[in-house]
Amino acid sequence: MADTRSLERLIEALRCLPGVGLKSAQRMAFHLLQHDPHGAQRLAGALSEAVGKVRHCSRCHTFTEDEVCSTCRDPRRDRGLLCVVETPADQAAMERTGAYKGLYFVLMGKLSALDGVGPREIGLDKLFERIAEEDPEVPLREVILATNFTAEGETTAHVIAQALKDHGLQVTRLARGVPVGSELEYVDLGTIAHALVDRR
Amino acid sequence: MADTRSLERLIEALRCLPGVGLKSAQRMAFHLLQHDPHGAQRLAGALSEAVGKVRHCSRCHTFTEDEVCSTCRDPRRDRGLLCVVETPADQAAMERTGAYKGLYFVLMGKLSALDGVGPREIGLDKLFERIAEEDPEVPLREVILATNFTAEGETTAHVIAQALKDHGLQVTRLARGVPVGSELEYVDLGTIAHALVDRR
Ligand SMILES: [Zn+2]
Ligand SMILES: [Zn+2]
Repeated sequence: MADTRSLERLIEALRCLPGVGLKSAQRMAFHLLQHDPHGAQRLAGALSEAVGKVRHCSRCHTFTEDEVCSTCRDPRRDRGLLCVVETPADQAAMERTGAYKGLYFVLMGKLSALDGVGPREIGLDKLFERIAEEDPEVPLREVILATNFTAEGETTAHVIAQALKDHGLQVTRLARGVPVGSELEYVDLGTIAHALVDRR
Repeated sequence: MADTRSLERLIEALRCLPGVGLKSAQRMAFHLLQHDPHGAQRLAGALSEAVGKVRHCSRCHTFTEDEVCSTCRDPRRDRGLLCVVETPADQAAMERTGAYKGLYFVLMGKLSALDGVGPREIGLDKLFERIAEEDPEVPLREVILATNFTAEGETTAHVIAQALKDHGLQVTRLARGVPVGSELEYVDLGTIAHALVDRR
């Protein structure tokens, strides 16, 4: 209908959100217009601002508004340790344990033949470049693979471990305190902390 | 963290969507920034446009960009019939049956003591005003109560039916072909069409 075109466009646009189908998009649009137009305006502004400002850290690939993120810039972090995680949410879960003081590399994904996600898409060249860099003050001594304990996360960890075999580095994996099949961001802090201590 | 403030604002803003908690909001924000910045920009534009343009039809209360919606303006609709529904989605479900050619009144909600939604919030005064209006050409002869067959929808229908008792109008309810406890927008078209024919 001509007189509801902007409503229909909103319903269509909401479907770009993961897990939101037509019915959910309708409910969201009706809710916003009926009960929360200010929230809708705030969301519009936040989307534009985030898309304009957020980019990837040139060192670790996580989201940041700067060239290099605050974690990579932090002089108190141990530059001899590099922890590889799938997503910023996983990185945040590691941080919340308080048990890790090294640096990160965030893949922003995982190897997935099914979804056509290969080594390039998750920035493995960048990871290997990063690892090959020589830091004269604090040489890298250990890479901790903290990808999820799912089939795809395990494959990703395996591929990285294989590639690093001859680098003379210690390559470890979080201990299997983390329940197999689960995703890091949903695991309780104690379990992650134990798995970090028992890394092998 | 200072360098991810716009990301955090986006996650917070996404929580205005119904059914979206912190974890979902994070996933949505990461997905948009990582995989679909164009979708995010389109959504931002659609939100602003819809909030700016969409309002309520002065006759039936549904969403429209005009003073009076296209259904209320349509000269082919039977002005002697008024169907009361909870939401535009319910109205759309009625329309899809093709079995109804009258007009609508959209409550944009339902009576709910629990949520503090009273007669004023769902525009019952407006509905009664609307019903009391005299149309010299086609007098209103029937009000069809098509609120959902949930406890709150039944209460809403009951309250409206009571208030219209002495208006000399036929007041009907969709027949119980619609499964009790279900919501209209999820019911198959044939069931709704039958319920419309068997209205009592
Ligand atoms: Zn960084
Ligand atoms: Zn209307």
